[in-house]
Amino acid sequence: MSASPSPIQKNVQAASETHSASFTKGHLALPPAKKYLVLTCMDARIDPAKAFGIELGDAHVIRNAGASTRDALRSIVISEQLLGTQEIVLVKHTGCGMLTFTNDDAYGLVDKNLGPEATAELKSRNVDFLPFSDLEQAIKVDIKYLQDTKLVPDSVTISGWIYEVETGRTRRVV
Amino acid sequence: MSASPSPIQKNVQAASETHSASFTKGHLALPPAKKYLVLTCMDARIDPAKAFGIELGDAHVIRNAGASTRDALRSIVISEQLLGTQEIVLVKHTGCGMLTFTNDDAYGLVDKNLGPEATAELKSRNVDFLPFSDLEQAIKVDIKYLQDTKLVPDSVTISGWIYEVETGRTRRVV
Repeated sequence: MSASPSPIQKNVQAASETHSASFTKGHLALPPAKKYLVLTCMDARIDPAKAFGIELGDAHVIRNAGASTRDALRSIVISEQLLGTQEIVLVKHTGCGMLTFTNDDAYGLVDKNLGPEATAELKSRNVDFLPFSDLEQAIKVDIKYLQDTKLVPDSVTISGWIYEVETGRTRRVV
Repeated sequence: MSASPSPIQKNVQAASETHSASFTKGHLALPPAKKYLVLTCMDARIDPAKAFGIELGDAHVIRNAGASTRDALRSIVISEQLLGTQEIVLVKHTGCGMLTFTNDDAYGLVDKNLGPEATAELKSRNVDFLPFSDLEQAIKVDIKYLQDTKLVPDSVTISGWIYEVETGRTRRVV
């Protein structure tokens, strides 16, 4: 641990003081009370609790680049099989960074910025960055992935949504 | 899309109405304004924006079961190489579900609940659920993973924290 915290680290410490001073939810149980999970993008413009109406303790929230169901499979299986969730709310969003590049672009950037050892590591891990070129289509493909895998039973309720970063609205598409 | 929305789907729709009615942040840029990312667990008892002081638009938020850096690597590389983040705040938490089971337990549950085809799929994908038995040690192992991979340059600032679900406090450990 370095002696001098960064501004971002100081911000976490300050938030901890403020948040814990008025915290009253220390009694919540581990399993999500409303037995669902939300899978959405890591995008900085999304606050899932506010935008999707999630009360503390009610739902798992999984976030990755692009809200990929494939990338989230490990977490989804744990959520369902070990912690009892039975419904998946998948939310991708307008203006997603995943619409702006291809795997070749990303591989090229890694090579340029981080060098050949990093590129070799990407290739040896066979990394797919999972970009997409059409938002609604990407939601359909991702939901089909959940329907096709045997690791998500047919009894799980699944819906697909688009969050509009311009308006704050969430609209259902699947 | 089924004709009758579930209670959870109705809740998303209601939240959309409320949230968009007072939404004033439609102008935010795609890249995180404060150039950092927070990686934390999907646990239902964590609200990262409130607990860690994240303003809308400031940071990527990646969440998976246990806040695994290995599982998050694809998203971390995209965040840094395509969207310019330069600092990682890793937060695991007390009472994590990942402390309560082993890979054998999870494989057994999948087999019991979903049957041999699901187990065969787990094995063919070589799924590691990435559970851990010691919280502080898991943070150290996960940070070492970031330090060892060539896909995260040494210039990235990394810190490791524990969020206490009982008190709402976040304390730094690495």
